[in-house]
Amino acid sequence: MLFCFMPISTAFSDHSAGPAALCQLLGTRHPIVQGGMVWCTNADLVIAVGQAGGLGTLGAGSMYPAELREEIAAVKAGFDGTFAVNVPLLYPAVEEHMQTIVEMGVPVVITSAGSPKKWTKFLKDRGVVVVHVVSSAAFAVKSVAAGVDAVVAEGFEAGGHNGREETTTLCLVPEVVAAVNVPVIAAGGISCGRTMMAALALGAAGVQMGSRFVATAECPAHEDFKAHILAAAAGSTKLRLKGVTPVRMLDNTEGGFSAQVAEAEARSASPEALRELLGRGRAKRGMRGGDLVEGELEIGQVSARLDNLPQAGDVVRDVVAGFEALRTQLSGPSFHWS
Amino acid sequence: MLFCFMPISTAFSDHSAGPAALCQLLGTRHPIVQGGMVWCTNADLVIAVGQAGGLGTLGAGSMYPAELREEIAAVKAGFDGTFAVNVPLLYPAVEEHMQTIVEMGVPVVITSAGSPKKWTKFLKDRGVVVVHVVSSAAFAVKSVAAGVDAVVAEGFEAGGHNGREETTTLCLVPEVVAAVNVPVIAAGGISCGRTMMAALALGAAGVQMGSRFVATAECPAHEDFKAHILAAAAGSTKLRLKGVTPVRMLDNTEGGFSAQVAEAEARSASPEALRELLGRGRAKRGMRGGDLVEGELEIGQVSARLDNLPQAGDVVRDVVAGFEALRTQLSGPSFHWS
Repeated sequence: MLFCFMPISTAFSDHSAGPAALCQLLGTRHPIVQGGMVWCTNADLVIAVGQAGGLGTLGAGSMYPAELREEIAAVKAGFDGTFAVNVPLLYPAVEEHMQTIVEMGVPVVITSAGSPKKWTKFLKDRGVVVVHVVSSAAFAVKSVAAGVDAVVAEGFEAGGHNGREETTTLCLVPEVVAAVNVPVIAAGGISCGRTMMAALALGAAGVQMGSRFVATAECPAHEDFKAHILAAAAGSTKLRLKGVTPVRMLDNTEGGFSAQVAEAEARSASPEALRELLGRGRAKRGMRGGDLVEGELEIGQVSARLDNLPQAGDVVRDVVAGFEALRTQLSGPSFHWS
Repeated sequence: MLFCFMPISTAFSDHSAGPAALCQLLGTRHPIVQGGMVWCTNADLVIAVGQAGGLGTLGAGSMYPAELREEIAAVKAGFDGTFAVNVPLLYPAVEEHMQTIVEMGVPVVITSAGSPKKWTKFLKDRGVVVVHVVSSAAFAVKSVAAGVDAVVAEGFEAGGHNGREETTTLCLVPEVVAAVNVPVIAAGGISCGRTMMAALALGAAGVQMGSRFVATAECPAHEDFKAHILAAAAGSTKLRLKGVTPVRMLDNTEGGFSAQVAEAEARSASPEALRELLGRGRAKRGMRGGDLVEGELEIGQVSARLDNLPQAGDVVRDVVAGFEALRTQLSGPSFHWS
């Protein structure tokens, strides 16, 4: 139970939590964040997004410590602007990642999948901007209490790991905006200027896009996985493994992994059995290795709308251009009716 | 696989499918539709919505033929403007309802839960405007081929019966808008000016709200059900009975019906067992009778954001006012960043 007729004026109180404030916080030209998608990020992608004015993010959840150091070094060698590292807080070597981040001067850390209590102060004391990913207003409030500078509010339609509440972006973002006084970055279902405008209308200060950046030229995902994403249609992704850790995944080919999970869930397989079915290394096998049958393919619902593999910088530019065109339209006859 | 960087200009081509066109089609002052919620509509609600400039709708899916005739007569006695009747096409006495609608001169029919092929021509030949509810772009295309004048695109977060694709409103609306050339009415997750602006940014011509109108003074739902809606939080509604007919329902009290369904689903109960558990009359028992334990309580995810029971006319006025205030903000600093 939150606010129903939230006064419009409260959402951006003194604009301290609006798009301009978010850009200042992140050091970007645009309030657009590339998500830290596991197995789908590298320095090339981060540099391309950063050069176009967005926030590129290395997804450290699928990197060994040495690999993260190499990728950070490559970003810094190719680009002198801001960027982020995403760290799932349940990652086994989280301590080593955090030391690397601080030693190498990473400007922004996006934490997820765990409590923001443990690392937020450590990072902020060392000058790092901290953003935490949440799937509910209650967790957003806890994150702000832990000291984070901003939150990503990620809805049910997002790819990969997902909240148990199943709250969609359209319902989640206004709840989170009403509950906290830091910039809220909307995630889940966003891929274009229209969806960015929708997110900002809901009170978000900016957007994070994952699926849209997986389907780019620079993304290191396997080309067969990218082609499979472009072939996705309505209903091609489903939230599965709810009894273990809910994750949105794309249907495989030939009755592969996703269908096997669906079948196991239909016969009420135990969490242990599901974990055994998942096994180890399936996400890498699918997304980096291109095994469309046995690999785990994490992607969002918005994949049904994707039909090309542009340069990542063009994604940023096209989203901004679409947003600006729509802003102009909003004051024209298309949005007036009487 | 649909359109990724949909040119902004195509969505309202010559404005024939925009908000003004929708208002003209429906005969309303505002592109706002009150959904035909089962057990939660009557003439009072429809009149209040209509007088405020929206489209009030009688939900015929929970009315006997005689009751529908009485309610239509009451609407016409109290209000000389436009209104609608929602007819789930699987309703047993659909033929009698359709005859009533035509004989009594109902201006708009919203069909759902069935193929629009059978009744659209019948209604249109008799001067009735026909709108069909869809949960995918593919069904929207089929509906337009069947001759409907507009479609309601209803997302995963909506209350009551729901699509198997689980596509959220944020993902669904742009897909449907890109696929058809009739006005698209967004439904699911909409309750205020912000969410209406989000829907129109996605290309919708208007919005349909169900949950928001259940939580009003005029709605004939049981007051205990309304109070239970106001107490809803994130995760309080879930899409259940997926093996039979997917329906979004609110958690009951005291481990009631929804928990019983969840338990049955966790042990992979058969569709027959689930149908037996559902039985007959549960929706009426919960929503009209106020049995919060054993009744089926249908409501949308947005119930987590509802905290009052306004007059239905004030809902329409506040949504429009919120939308207009937000439109003004779009040219201000809240939506600019560089």
